[in-house]
Amino acid sequence: MSGKDSRRTKASAAADDETPGFAAIILAGGSGTRFWPRSRRARPKQVLSLDGDRTMIQNTLERVKPLVSSGQVWIITNDLLAKTIAKQLPDVEAKHILREPAARNTAPACGLAAFLLERSSPETVLGVFPSDHTIGDVERFRRVVRAGAELARRGAMVVLGVSPTRAETGYGYIELGAAVKPLQSDKSIPVRRVRRFTEKPDKVKAKRFLRSGNYAWNSGMFLWTAKTLADAMREHQPKTAALLEQIAAARGTPKFDEVFAELYPQCESISIDYAVLEPRSAKGEAKSELYCLPGDFAWSDLGSWAALHEYVAERAESHNSNVVEAEHHVEIASTGCYVFSPNKTVALVGVKDLVVVETDDAILITTREGSQDVGKVVAELKSTGRHDLT
Amino acid sequence: MSGKDSRRTKASAAADDETPGFAAIILAGGSGTRFWPRSRRARPKQVLSLDGDRTMIQNTLERVKPLVSSGQVWIITNDLLAKTIAKQLPDVEAKHILREPAARNTAPACGLAAFLLERSSPETVLGVFPSDHTIGDVERFRRVVRAGAELARRGAMVVLGVSPTRAETGYGYIELGAAVKPLQSDKSIPVRRVRRFTEKPDKVKAKRFLRSGNYAWNSGMFLWTAKTLADAMREHQPKTAALLEQIAAARGTPKFDEVFAELYPQCESISIDYAVLEPRSAKGEAKSELYCLPGDFAWSDLGSWAALHEYVAERAESHNSNVVEAEHHVEIASTGCYVFSPNKTVALVGVKDLVVVETDDAILITTREGSQDVGKVVAELKSTGRHDLT
Repeated sequence: MSGKDSRRTKASAAADDETPGFAAIILAGGSGTRFWPRSRRARPKQVLSLDGDRTMIQNTLERVKPLVSSGQVWIITNDLLAKTIAKQLPDVEAKHILREPAARNTAPACGLAAFLLERSSPETVLGVFPSDHTIGDVERFRRVVRAGAELARRGAMVVLGVSPTRAETGYGYIELGAAVKPLQSDKSIPVRRVRRFTEKPDKVKAKRFLRSGNYAWNSGMFLWTAKTLADAMREHQPKTAALLEQIAAARGTPKFDEVFAELYPQCESISIDYAVLEPRSAKGEAKSELYCLPGDFAWSDLGSWAALHEYVAERAESHNSNVVEAEHHVEIASTGCYVFSPNKTVALVGVKDLVVVETDDAILITTREGSQDVGKVVAELKSTGRHDLT
Repeated sequence: MSGKDSRRTKASAAADDETPGFAAIILAGGSGTRFWPRSRRARPKQVLSLDGDRTMIQNTLERVKPLVSSGQVWIITNDLLAKTIAKQLPDVEAKHILREPAARNTAPACGLAAFLLERSSPETVLGVFPSDHTIGDVERFRRVVRAGAELARRGAMVVLGVSPTRAETGYGYIELGAAVKPLQSDKSIPVRRVRRFTEKPDKVKAKRFLRSGNYAWNSGMFLWTAKTLADAMREHQPKTAALLEQIAAARGTPKFDEVFAELYPQCESISIDYAVLEPRSAKGEAKSELYCLPGDFAWSDLGSWAALHEYVAERAESHNSNVVEAEHHVEIASTGCYVFSPNKTVALVGVKDLVVVETDDAILITTREGSQDVGKVVAELKSTGRHDLT
């Protein structure tokens, strides 16, 4: 195939894939510490290349690109990251990279997008996507999102739910309700009503959820039209909705920056789940118009170095199940290790299940289990004034 | 005390300490791989600072300096190291840094020193000191060496023996013979005849030696006069002795380098223990004039990263028994680790008994136990052509 043909084919495929009136809202304001020492305040997970050449936010955009209407990618981030993100996503219009004047969790972020888009095209479907998750099966992901968009266009609020594989206490859970009849466009995707949202459970509850088979993890990915979400915000978060509506009204005027900076910090800092989805589910599953689609596309939120290790090891042909990113490496009687030291020769001798991560100024040495506690290192560095390392 | 007084006191102390007719023969031709990645072919253990600011050979010289007659320090090394050593030991005369044209183990090295010194001062005591051992109690070391020199001056061959603390299979052992009456000069030092030298034992034997209480490790430190050793070489190693005698005869002539380069490689490659001490001990302990003095001065040959860890941890006030050489470090639920990464912040989280060593081009990740096998890494790097890393 000539280069020209190849381009033409890609272009027409993209056109076929495009779902009319679809906007991607990519949430990129996070500032985690779980990937220290690689992640830092100004360099959180979403702008790092953890599992390949591209950064997590680049992968996020790449995944949704074929679904999105022209020019309808929106990034919600902050001052610290906006420049880096603009550089990493050169195709995204600068005016669509919104800098929150203060972090206010996901409800104001999603709500702002809804009020902005409601003014010009209320029936546009907004797909909300965190920028720091990995998805192994991109084709399946796109099919599920397309199906979700179809439901959303009919007025539904759709959440993508992942079947739990362990009694995780760090996630919100969705109790699934009745199965409804499959979508015309893609009958292979099961659709469930949502009975209830449950915030992070304790271990006992999490085990029960896992056993019951009737719960899904809340992936933090949602689909709804601008109008549906704006109305829901007005109903369940009237104060924040009024503030966001004023901000949206100032959009395009010289006063926008000032209004945004003044009003946004007054919004309640609350997750979209708590703010809208939980109260909505209280109407009862038959009336709430809340639906859950299966996030069965090898999803991971990469919550730790151990999770990254697992993710990469599953995908790569990994020698002795060590994953070693290094200039060169030698392994002797070692298994289950994750090592990142891209410019050096790494030698593993008689070690098991370790995580070692080297950057220009730091080395983390822990175990797969211990990697859950990396936040404690960052906390200690902060408390001892070593902000240069956080 | 004023600076002037202090200098005067030191100078007179040095004069008092000097043992007349004492030469230090420092063996520095070794090329171990046990401290990879810090040690490399051109940078073996003896020229590294492992336990402080000074290198091991600098510490070796510092320890023996007060004992040595003016100008009587001799270094036996090789072409690869001579420059580095000359730089590290600026007080040692260049002509006393001998470069072996080929490595021939310790018998030719010690023998060469004996034949060289025999020509001008046969009664000079030669103290043979490996350049890569550590000694915790330097004052005690000097007292033992002075006592050994006194015995050597009477024609004895003296070996410093270390009381075993574990069933080590990597060392030669000395079976101790009769106790002889203490030296006039230092009655606190017990003197034993040598019954037998035993090369590296197997585990069962090593355990028996440890239990019996009548064995010492051969420290590789010896004392004898030039004449005593030269005669012993003539008796037990006549071929090598003849070669070394020719080399010594050429010393100071324009032909020396040529003769040295031609004859030295023809010497038998054999340790001084095998070459001279074992055959000598066959005469029976009453006649052999072999003596063992206690090396009870906190000796270690630092055979591994684990041994270095133990050595440093014993001496330093080490937090949770981790020893971390780093720009800064954070420890969370971690014990028994040795980490070297002098320019970085090191974070240990939930790890135990690990050894991690970082250099400009490599990182070793192992356990205290696994650190015995670091040589395997070097072997693999060699076999895959990565000589840049060995």
